[in-house]
Amino acid sequence: MNRSFTAKRISFILCIMVLLASAGLHAQQKPNIIVFLVDDMGWMDTSLPFGDKVMPLNKRFHTPNMERLATEGMKFTHAYAAPVCTPSRVSFMSGMNAAHHRVTNWTSVLKDEPSDFDHEKNPLKTPDWNINGMSPVKGISQTVYATPLAELLKEAGYFTIHVGKAHWAAAGTPGASPYNMGFLVNVAGNVAGMPQSYLSEDNYGNIPGKTTYYAVQNMTEYYGTHTFLTEALTREALKTLDHPIRTHQPFFLYMAHYAVHLPVNADDRFFDKYLKAGLDSAQAKYASMIEGMDKSLGDIMDFLKQKNIDQNTIILFMSDNGGNSISPAKGDKLHTGNLPLREGKGSVYEGGIREPMIVKWPGVVKPGSVTDQPVIIEDYFPSLLEMAGVKNPKVVQPVDGKTFVPILKGNSNVYPDRIFTWHYPNKWKKKDLHDIDYLSAIRQGDWKLVYRMLTKKLELYNLKTDIGEQHDLAAQYPDKVKKLAALLGEQFRSWGALMPSYKAGGQQVPWPDKL
Amino acid sequence: MNRSFTAKRISFILCIMVLLASAGLHAQQKPNIIVFLVDDMGWMDTSLPFGDKVMPLNKRFHTPNMERLATEGMKFTHAYAAPVCTPSRVSFMSGMNAAHHRVTNWTSVLKDEPSDFDHEKNPLKTPDWNINGMSPVKGISQTVYATPLAELLKEAGYFTIHVGKAHWAAAGTPGASPYNMGFLVNVAGNVAGMPQSYLSEDNYGNIPGKTTYYAVQNMTEYYGTHTFLTEALTREALKTLDHPIRTHQPFFLYMAHYAVHLPVNADDRFFDKYLKAGLDSAQAKYASMIEGMDKSLGDIMDFLKQKNIDQNTIILFMSDNGGNSISPAKGDKLHTGNLPLREGKGSVYEGGIREPMIVKWPGVVKPGSVTDQPVIIEDYFPSLLEMAGVKNPKVVQPVDGKTFVPILKGNSNVYPDRIFTWHYPNKWKKKDLHDIDYLSAIRQGDWKLVYRMLTKKLELYNLKTDIGEQHDLAAQYPDKVKKLAALLGEQFRSWGALMPSYKAGGQQVPWPDKL
Repeated sequence: MNRSFTAKRISFILCIMVLLASAGLHAQQKPNIIVFLVDDMGWMDTSLPFGDKVMPLNKRFHTPNMERLATEGMKFTHAYAAPVCTPSRVSFMSGMNAAHHRVTNWTSVLKDEPSDFDHEKNPLKTPDWNINGMSPVKGISQTVYATPLAELLKEAGYFTIHVGKAHWAAAGTPGASPYNMGFLVNVAGNVAGMPQSYLSEDNYGNIPGKTTYYAVQNMTEYYGTHTFLTEALTREALKTLDHPIRTHQPFFLYMAHYAVHLPVNADDRFFDKYLKAGLDSAQAKYASMIEGMDKSLGDIMDFLKQKNIDQNTIILFMSDNGGNSISPAKGDKLHTGNLPLREGKGSVYEGGIREPMIVKWPGVVKPGSVTDQPVIIEDYFPSLLEMAGVKNPKVVQPVDGKTFVPILKGNSNVYPDRIFTWHYPNKWKKKDLHDIDYLSAIRQGDWKLVYRMLTKKLELYNLKTDIGEQHDLAAQYPDKVKKLAALLGEQFRSWGALMPSYKAGGQQVPWPDKL
Repeated sequence: MNRSFTAKRISFILCIMVLLASAGLHAQQKPNIIVFLVDDMGWMDTSLPFGDKVMPLNKRFHTPNMERLATEGMKFTHAYAAPVCTPSRVSFMSGMNAAHHRVTNWTSVLKDEPSDFDHEKNPLKTPDWNINGMSPVKGISQTVYATPLAELLKEAGYFTIHVGKAHWAAAGTPGASPYNMGFLVNVAGNVAGMPQSYLSEDNYGNIPGKTTYYAVQNMTEYYGTHTFLTEALTREALKTLDHPIRTHQPFFLYMAHYAVHLPVNADDRFFDKYLKAGLDSAQAKYASMIEGMDKSLGDIMDFLKQKNIDQNTIILFMSDNGGNSISPAKGDKLHTGNLPLREGKGSVYEGGIREPMIVKWPGVVKPGSVTDQPVIIEDYFPSLLEMAGVKNPKVVQPVDGKTFVPILKGNSNVYPDRIFTWHYPNKWKKKDLHDIDYLSAIRQGDWKLVYRMLTKKLELYNLKTDIGEQHDLAAQYPDKVKKLAALLGEQFRSWGALMPSYKAGGQQVPWPDKL
């Protein structure tokens, strides 16, 4: 080979390399990520069974797009969140367990206002939890300072879009705005944890003199247009995707529906169908909201296909806590809305924390697969970073979540001895709710220990044989109780978890392993 | 030269070309563009004199950053807008004159609600103007369908940001949302033409039970933080600039302050200073709002410098109409707030349409230059497209504006015979305002003809010798009147401008050249 030929070849190879690098600048390498987060959706609020068989409640609902997503992705039958919304949302954005980030209850709209109810006869004092939520800025009182997941994705080149409910923090703090939480675009997200109304006929609550803090902002375009909020938010989401698609940027869409939180409004595209099916008006309204949410999912899936990006887009379906089982507005006998699961939103029993979860990841997840490996909401943080190829992110907080990407890749028994914990040292409603207020729990394998702080009692359940948590086996397995209580106590102490205290005397309620 | 050497050279040149192209993908070519649009700011509401000398009102205000911008850019002493806000804003975004786009008055919050006041004794019927504003979508009733300027800039690679007041259209129509008008980011813009309050202590109006359609949305982060709205919007704007700066994308920031529209709230960072200077409380409040706005301009200029992008950023300062001269809340004797200019907001007399305008464009505009060449708000459309290097944009509407880039480049007498027109076939307030309601005007050179539709009278003024429009020369120059009336009539007819009609009889008020 003569010298000039070699030079020519080197030159040519260089050219090809530069061309490839140049093309790489425009070609999208990273997968798009859509988190489809439903609010207050129960584990049974779908025609897609997450249990081992179709249950009576499954038959009430019609969610064809969830079924479709499940056939294209992996269904998680043991996915968990915190029992109420802000703790889950903060766990999602921070990667921390609620006992660790200390935003253990939902945040009020206004700063420094606790959301816990109390009354004279309540013997316990709720601890000083982070009532102002999460803050991406240091030094904000009663907040957890943490690097938001969306910020890291933005820094990794993602076009980050927030649509719907934010509710990470109280007004007057940085966490109130999705623009401070790493999002480039925000539609309708702020400090409100629910919409004043889903109806455009009500302007989503924006009616002079009647407007509360829960009136949905940013949606004037739809006032009076007969567009249910779920539909309006979906259209907004698809609209914002145009830009990253056109400019070949990977996007992260946080599609956080206000649905299916209260108020229960009829989505009249579907309402009649459920009345005809024999549901009462309240039940039919709720079922119509579920189907409106499901249509949103389908519309997004259709849009991705139409834009020819469905094969490079990960969709993660999740709910932020269990279905509300104490609202008469939903039409069911109270405490039965998540059967066979016990209780609902607010509770550490399975009805409050077990979530419908599906992940579609073309080329990675086996279509139609199912896993019973447990995961929890804070796992989204490391999982999404891994999906986005973010290595060694700069994060100010310790991350408790573990990536579920290995599970998605089909590995079994990924975290064999992992413990999962829930902590609700709070009081949810005025009325005392003994299956909700002041409860903690730990799960390891099939075993779950529930700690009732009010009565200082421990209950033990085997979830494999008793999904409804009806048979307390504590007396039968004292060693198991002792072991789980120790694990829970150690975990909580290491995180600096907050415990309630006694109004009389002031001392702290004992740790579960120090009774 | 042997063949292999030639091949090597071609190979090498190709490499260099590819490298340059590849670098070009990251290097920012286009200038950033910031439009700093103030609401209802009068021509005299600044310590920077736009007249030929410092006037008494100039002495009342303190706007050091406007002065600074003028020393770094070009001051336009004959810049015009429409007499009220929505018409100006639609002209800006569409490039059309208000008589042509037919959004001749401000749009109501709600769809299909005219904003004109009427009473029994008013002999005129306001025409069917486009009461729903501008629409980027075809077929929306009573809107002008037009391609928004921001959309074209976005398509040209600009990261487009809307902060503040939008007010192009009514609720329930696409133009209500900046996301439909070409913006990637929206903070606080919707259908409201004013803020309910500038005070974070009032949550900018968001107080349950007291909230109106004018409560500012998207600003929960600042509730109760003692942050004047102007300051909060500035911080939001700077925050949104981080991303395009970091990713080397050119940006278009439409910084559309709600200030200094009513309500007149004290910006207490500056209020005392004006009280001490001898202003009454109302005047001091208004002056404090002006200085708050000026601080915002300064903060943005400082930020650009700090980020080292000031030399590649064009700043255009403008107001959308004249100062409000009929509000007692501003503390002045009515109809005197823009002296020596006649009248104010709503009027086609100079007080209603002459605007403070400054353009800084490093490397193009001569620092400290001044031009007396007239320009008008619809000129921003072609001018910004030229600045952004957009050639032959796809635009569905005819564009009336003319680029002022040649003026910025120092050319004199760029459009020697150009005519400028204003059209307000509307009624602004309940009380009859004879210098505001139902007026049209045309300017050519130093001459201005005012057409009073109510009385069918024509007035002629020489702006060079009579800036205050105090001496009607119509009787003295009948040929000039005839010529200008013909130009105005022809122009209006060619645009299909709408004229009021008589309630009695129903016929149209005659064109100015058909009296």
